[in-house]
Amino acid sequence: MESMTFILFGATGDLAKRKIFPALYNLFLDQKMPDSISIIGLGRREMSDREFQNQVEQSLRTFSRRIDFDRTNLYKFLDAFRYSEFNAVNPEDYRKLLSLVKQRENERNIPENRMFYLSVAPEFFDLISLNIKESGLGSTKGWKRLIIEKPFGRDLESARELNTRLSEAFEEDEIYRIDHYLGKPMVQNLEALKFANPILQPLWNNQHIANIQITASEVVGVEERAGYYDQAGAIRDMFQNHMLQMLMMTAMNQPKKMNANEIRNEKRKIIESLRGLKKEDVSLHVVRGQYRSGEAYGMQLAGYTEEPGVNPTSKNDTFVAAKVMIDNENWQGVPFYIRTGKRMKIKSTRIVIEFKDSLKELYENKNEKIIPNLLIIEINPNENITLQLNHKNPLHDGKIEPVKINFSAEQKGVPEAYERLIFDAFRGDSTFFAHWKEVEMSWEWVQPILDAFKENLLPLHLYEAGSNGPDAAESLLKADGFKWWLDEVDLEENEENKSELEFITH
Amino acid sequence: MESMTFILFGATGDLAKRKIFPALYNLFLDQKMPDSISIIGLGRREMSDREFQNQVEQSLRTFSRRIDFDRTNLYKFLDAFRYSEFNAVNPEDYRKLLSLVKQRENERNIPENRMFYLSVAPEFFDLISLNIKESGLGSTKGWKRLIIEKPFGRDLESARELNTRLSEAFEEDEIYRIDHYLGKPMVQNLEALKFANPILQPLWNNQHIANIQITASEVVGVEERAGYYDQAGAIRDMFQNHMLQMLMMTAMNQPKKMNANEIRNEKRKIIESLRGLKKEDVSLHVVRGQYRSGEAYGMQLAGYTEEPGVNPTSKNDTFVAAKVMIDNENWQGVPFYIRTGKRMKIKSTRIVIEFKDSLKELYENKNEKIIPNLLIIEINPNENITLQLNHKNPLHDGKIEPVKINFSAEQKGVPEAYERLIFDAFRGDSTFFAHWKEVEMSWEWVQPILDAFKENLLPLHLYEAGSNGPDAAESLLKADGFKWWLDEVDLEENEENKSELEFITH
Repeated sequence: MESMTFILFGATGDLAKRKIFPALYNLFLDQKMPDSISIIGLGRREMSDREFQNQVEQSLRTFSRRIDFDRTNLYKFLDAFRYSEFNAVNPEDYRKLLSLVKQRENERNIPENRMFYLSVAPEFFDLISLNIKESGLGSTKGWKRLIIEKPFGRDLESARELNTRLSEAFEEDEIYRIDHYLGKPMVQNLEALKFANPILQPLWNNQHIANIQITASEVVGVEERAGYYDQAGAIRDMFQNHMLQMLMMTAMNQPKKMNANEIRNEKRKIIESLRGLKKEDVSLHVVRGQYRSGEAYGMQLAGYTEEPGVNPTSKNDTFVAAKVMIDNENWQGVPFYIRTGKRMKIKSTRIVIEFKDSLKELYENKNEKIIPNLLIIEINPNENITLQLNHKNPLHDGKIEPVKINFSAEQKGVPEAYERLIFDAFRGDSTFFAHWKEVEMSWEWVQPILDAFKENLLPLHLYEAGSNGPDAAESLLKADGFKWWLDEVDLEENEENKSELEFITH
Repeated sequence: MESMTFILFGATGDLAKRKIFPALYNLFLDQKMPDSISIIGLGRREMSDREFQNQVEQSLRTFSRRIDFDRTNLYKFLDAFRYSEFNAVNPEDYRKLLSLVKQRENERNIPENRMFYLSVAPEFFDLISLNIKESGLGSTKGWKRLIIEKPFGRDLESARELNTRLSEAFEEDEIYRIDHYLGKPMVQNLEALKFANPILQPLWNNQHIANIQITASEVVGVEERAGYYDQAGAIRDMFQNHMLQMLMMTAMNQPKKMNANEIRNEKRKIIESLRGLKKEDVSLHVVRGQYRSGEAYGMQLAGYTEEPGVNPTSKNDTFVAAKVMIDNENWQGVPFYIRTGKRMKIKSTRIVIEFKDSLKELYENKNEKIIPNLLIIEINPNENITLQLNHKNPLHDGKIEPVKINFSAEQKGVPEAYERLIFDAFRGDSTFFAHWKEVEMSWEWVQPILDAFKENLLPLHLYEAGSNGPDAAESLLKADGFKWWLDEVDLEENEENKSELEFITH
């Protein structure tokens, strides 16, 4: 790993404190950081280097997954940090930044490898990028990389505009677009599950799979983000990025080689093959929902339009479900059902693969009802791989019953998504970052849905807070003879979700 | 289930006490017994009905898996039992038995359905069967069934002779040959696993499977059965029957329907397709072993020839391993490795299916070593289904590592093999009994091995008591580029095996 300068725009923000500093610290402890690194934090406030270092330390103590702080280590880590007061609209500040960067490169004897991390509001993306170029910050003798956070545009047009601007300063292979779902262990595991297992690989197609269900349900409501969320909706906040990324990871074919280019090539083929929607037909394939008041785990929950900061007449979507078809040889005829929502019954991000029931007939004459085989990949909050098979239950006279064979991943000490992704960016491995083409085509596919929502071409189904979403989302599957799996809450999950809710509510 | 008379030959023997009475009692409690049943025990000793009933009760209290004895239930159960002093060589005793049977049929108003259970030494099988016919016991207006225990012959010729005799008195579909391995939950589960799971079914062939390993290893030695065992050896005691039955269950193709005839048809096709051995070539495919003294779990263990009751110059096999090929379309090229032995390191009956490594190349260029996928079916002493998959371990930078996803069967309250098999015989379901053709062809296949052993055409490999058997059994697989899986003992198993050994040794 080459020595570098890590320049963090938005270093006093929430994401920096909660995720980025702890990620850097854990990488440092794991020796997954360049031997020599210069870290420069930028923010609008005036602050000394020492004050900034204290702030970093405070954030580690609050948010780091490691709670043991060795003085020597901590000091060595913090010593890499410098701070510069910075206003993104002021060209002078970029020049000031350039001198600081160069000064530190000299002091630390670091080649001109510069990583720019934009942890700022999206309206600054293009401005900062342009100024990086014009100030000379981007004219390095080493490499330069740009890490940006979502949202990447708010529709197809704005995303394209943004990309055009960014590409004036950075090449595509210099841009690392973070979709933190791609940093989650079980999402990364999809590749290994499918391609490193000779017994799963031959099953991963329409010959064996009946349908695939991707769910990301939250029990929390809109929280403090009402201002942003009421403009974005579930479709922009979750669906266009995280949900479609999970879809691509689940559906992608085996690449010729296991490298970033080949893998992202295969992902792109999936997003290119999504059967397009016309805005007039969106209502046939997409369900739009919004939570109204309800009750969960003994608590009264307000409806979306009653939440502080939300327009009381808002028609914003807090729930989206869609039936997606992939028109390629592998997936022809296999519906992908995708849904995401707030204020739902269970906090759960999961992928359920339902296999075809090809052996039904064999057992039907024995009056045995065979439940489909399922492969369940739980991504969040628990990380599990479960295979639901059928077996003869000796306690019930050898009747054939489903049985779950299960692997629960060790979750202690596992690097967080940000740690993994920043590490990958350090190494220049872009496998788990979103390529522009993926982003563009996601927006392209989503655009008719955005239009249909805007023009109110489909109903807004109200669902009770604490439920599994609107009935219409059930009907979407029922029409094909399927149902959403695992919507039932068991007691254990109950407790977990309740505490989640209490944590949020209080 | 029709009312019947259950006539138990050998009612004072060990098997009756340990297995048959408890099985009957548990079936009775589970209401898996005919409403009206007459049970007649036969033995050489003189005994009153009451004494016999006491003996039955005693055996329940010692060996039944249920330990709760309700007076009313127990009394009702014991009330069905009668005893008759009986000498198998005395024709008069069969006539006496017939009157007792008829008298009880009248008293209990039971149709002439008669089940004869031969829990006696094998030399009496044909004699008793013949006398059942000649005495008129077998001339019923209802049905008659014969249950017999192993051994069914001691070579091909004697097995055929025995069968000819039995078939003078019973039709093939009236004969229920017990192989208690076929009563074990996980052996019965093989059928469901393969045929009720659309995701396993397409994998069950030479396209996906590299090899199959069937192990039945015991930590115990020859115990009190030296007299019998020194004549039989592992080849007759375990291999010809249990091991080949497990092979048939594992390898059988999907039957057209799930009934006894179709299933046994498919099993027969397997045993018919085993590639035959010439006695001259046995040494190439079969390893013969005998344990010498050794140490296990801190205990000194005597060698086989030092065991009481064993001929000190005995060349008897206490271990057999074989490589078996099945010449049909499904299994062409897939070796089945089978081994069984006494005084081995681990008590374990298990089937391991090793899948082909078709995806190796994809990951080799990433310096990832992919471990094969395994399906592990543990039959005894634990009942587990485990699938070894590969996943990315987030604790090791996403390196691909094997992970075991596992289902441990509930073992509390599960009916024992004898319970299941007697229940099946009550119902006239012969699915899990050995058909004569299976038995005959097993002997036919084994005969050259018997000959080669007798003529000493292959070495007798001595292996240390407490080991995994002779090295030659390792070489058998190594020659094909494979190895026995799961021979490593972990600590937990250690304790279990140690207590097994202590239980036996003291």
